[in-house]
Amino acid sequence: MASPVELLSLSNPVFKSFTFWVGVLVIKMLLMSLLTAVQRFKTKTFANPEDLMSPKLKVKFDDPNVERVRRAHRNDLENILPFFAIGLLYVLTNPAAFLAINLFRAVGISRIVHTLVYAVVVVPQPSRALAFFVALGATVYMALQVILSAAF
Amino acid sequence: MASPVELLSLSNPVFKSFTFWVGVLVIKMLLMSLLTAVQRFKTKTFANPEDLMSPKLKVKFDDPNVERVRRAHRNDLENILPFFAIGLLYVLTNPAAFLAINLFRAVGISRIVHTLVYAVVVVPQPSRALAFFVALGATVYMALQVILSAAF
Amino acid sequence: MASPVELLSLSNPVFKSFTFWVGVLVIKMLLMSLLTAVQRFKTKTFANPEDLMSPKLKVKFDDPNVERVRRAHRNDLENILPFFAIGLLYVLTNPAAFLAINLFRAVGISRIVHTLVYAVVVVPQPSRALAFFVALGATVYMALQVILSAAF
Repeated sequence: MASPVELLSLSNPVFKSFTFWVGVLVIKMLLMSLLTAVQRFKTKTFANPEDLMSPKLKVKFDDPNVERVRRAHRNDLENILPFFAIGLLYVLTNPAAFLAINLFRAVGISRIVHTLVYAVVVVPQPSRALAFFVALGATVYMALQVILSAAF
Repeated sequence: MASPVELLSLSNPVFKSFTFWVGVLVIKMLLMSLLTAVQRFKTKTFANPEDLMSPKLKVKFDDPNVERVRRAHRNDLENILPFFAIGLLYVLTNPAAFLAINLFRAVGISRIVHTLVYAVVVVPQPSRALAFFVALGATVYMALQVILSAAF
Repeated sequence: MASPVELLSLSNPVFKSFTFWVGVLVIKMLLMSLLTAVQRFKTKTFANPEDLMSPKLKVKFDDPNVERVRRAHRNDLENILPFFAIGLLYVLTNPAAFLAINLFRAVGISRIVHTLVYAVVVVPQPSRALAFFVALGATVYMALQVILSAAF
């Protein structure tokens, strides 16, 4: 088995691919905050008294556009962050490069699609469900491989 | 001190145990989404207009069964995800194997118990509080060890 | 380029600094749960029937003090957890020590300030916005560096 020295080096194509997709997904997640802010200013929906820009405004928590972006963002926390942890451990199990790289691609692309059809342009179901389950399936597969490699 | 080569190898029993419990907890966390979906369909509580399966339904945000699972899920984000980060760094401080392995077990088992008594079968307090504090205490201990090893 | 052996060792000042700030920020995040609990007991605002300590109380979800701490905590999940993932990968790109250490410091200090001005003593804007954007900017910079190092 390869040593962690080689596995966590950018000369390992599996680690390189993981690194690339984590970078892309981190940027994508951080953009959700800005997308929320855009919706807050557009709809004048602020959650804190100190954020109100006019004495005529009041705090508001129920704008559907703001809440939609927040739900998409929370879904990222629930799915992308566990992928970051399990993906790194999966790299350390020294998986076959072709499979691993395509799993990372599947997670990366499907989570971007999930955001687009959920919070940017609302597309009818099952588009969001499909994007959700592709990433979920790939992450569960990696987690099972990690458990198997550690359990025996 | 052992080098990262050995510390992040599955031949290191501490890393092996960490890897196992991260895998188990990732699966557990991802199941929370499915548990939320089950409650949504059971109680016909959907948060997005495009999710409604009949024109008679309206979006709903206040079903107590759905919200309970969502609170348990959010509690996982708040506690399990920081454990993933600090656990890996704790492995890299080369801790005594017996202690480290039992800390990982304590976090893993107590977070599973937390979900069971919170979102599956509601058990009276202090069961949830106890499960919460066992995992919190173990994680804080690891974080303090990591800070100490890095501060001097 | 240095090997992962050296990069993930505490004798690498960049990794040492990263380790220190992750430890500090994990403790800070976990304290948010206790701060929420303090506010819950102070205002007798409990979200679960089994948490009510007197038959006269009812579940409540809209106390502004509790909700403020919960918003600060969620903001931590959205910003600090992605930093943990991208920071580790950034260390593995072998960045210049002076820059990297100051980026980690910027994230660590600005996220502590963010909590203080949001959830401990409310300070008028733009203090919270500034703290937010310092950490966001540093994290985005690291993510772009990680993407660049992995893309070519």
